[in-house]
Amino acid sequence: MSNPNNLSDNIVWHATTIQRRDRESRLGQKGTVIWLTGLSGCGKSTIANELESLLYQRGAATVLLDGDNVRHGLCAPPQTLAQRHGQAFADRFGLGFGQQDREENIRRIAAVGELFVSSGMIAITAFVSPYRNDRQSARKQIESAGAQGDFVEVFVDTPLEICERRDPKGLYKKARAGEIKNFTGISDPYQPPSSPEIHLIGGDDRTVTEQANEIIVYLEASGRLRAN
Amino acid sequence: MSNPNNLSDNIVWHATTIQRRDRESRLGQKGTVIWLTGLSGCGKSTIANELESLLYQRGAATVLLDGDNVRHGLCAPPQTLAQRHGQAFADRFGLGFGQQDREENIRRIAAVGELFVSSGMIAITAFVSPYRNDRQSARKQIESAGAQGDFVEVFVDTPLEICERRDPKGLYKKARAGEIKNFTGISDPYQPPSSPEIHLIGGDDRTVTEQANEIIVYLEASGRLRAN
Repeated sequence: MSNPNNLSDNIVWHATTIQRRDRESRLGQKGTVIWLTGLSGCGKSTIANELESLLYQRGAATVLLDGDNVRHGLCAPPQTLAQRHGQAFADRFGLGFGQQDREENIRRIAAVGELFVSSGMIAITAFVSPYRNDRQSARKQIESAGAQGDFVEVFVDTPLEICERRDPKGLYKKARAGEIKNFTGISDPYQPPSSPEIHLIGGDDRTVTEQANEIIVYLEASGRLRAN
Repeated sequence: MSNPNNLSDNIVWHATTIQRRDRESRLGQKGTVIWLTGLSGCGKSTIANELESLLYQRGAATVLLDGDNVRHGLCAPPQTLAQRHGQAFADRFGLGFGQQDREENIRRIAAVGELFVSSGMIAITAFVSPYRNDRQSARKQIESAGAQGDFVEVFVDTPLEICERRDPKGLYKKARAGEIKNFTGISDPYQPPSSPEIHLIGGDDRTVTEQANEIIVYLEASGRLRAN
């Protein structure tokens, strides 16, 4: 009996599958993860938001991944998971702030970045991501699924004193008071990138727009974004 | 000392943050997860690929999530994770095929779907997803982050006999021989959707294009895709 849906007849469909390069040429951009790293309060989210606005204005397709949209879903803490999935489930899969938890947090974000890259999008991530190994592992994961250059590390290098003075969420205050343990920059190390693609000095005289624009110039110069 | 990057000065930036509706109006579509469910070999991937091709031809922005791109990254099995992250890490976060593992698998995919929806994309997922509770949970997760209607369940309802006759990966044969345990449809239950948005009958006389087109007609009729 002939069957039009028989999978063995579907070589044609697979041949017409939309590829990353199809999307990219339509969008005028290359799928890229722009990985911002730096201390809490260094300006990652602000730069990420500004970068996304600038890219949007040029017609680019972007997504922004940060604590706000990742922590209640993809990398939810145990207490959130327990409500919907029970305690045993939450204990296994929920993410706290231990070393292993942070590693898995970064791994999941990198895996999602990889999916966005494969669909030709520019994914901007804004996480402290303090460990060099974890960022290196994210780079490998993304580049091995795609190509070298798909991962752009941006070090937002703002002196601790400035971050602590800003303290937008009052976290440094709590960390100094011992109310938060393992706080990056206070009681936990931050390992700066040794050779980031872009090195922004936070707290200098430039505006956020100028800083975000440095990233755009890089993307254009490296052929990842069609010049305006 | 005045500092142009001080976070407290950045109310303006947050006000210009790109919203889901901005992207949607540009793309002429609403962020949507199209969740295909059905037995192994029912035609999910074939329909998903064809749907994506049709949507691409109309200029829609889509992503396809299936075992091929999720199982080596986001939902990697323990053996994959062990190579990069060590055994203890792999034991905790790697996903096998137990009940809890399947639940977490679906939860992560739903969380990623949520991220794509928030960026205005149409995400097509093609997983057996045999348990009604897990699909219901995915629907809740996606709709609670966005709006009702963001989740479109498509039941690819192909009789087991046809799936087993196709057996594109030889999995049914192995399951019948007892080489694969907990195989949906053979030794593990498939719980059909009680009220899916779209109910496709697999193995009928329609072509894959006609089936995929039924989904497009639904998206247009429900105002999720600009009519051609």
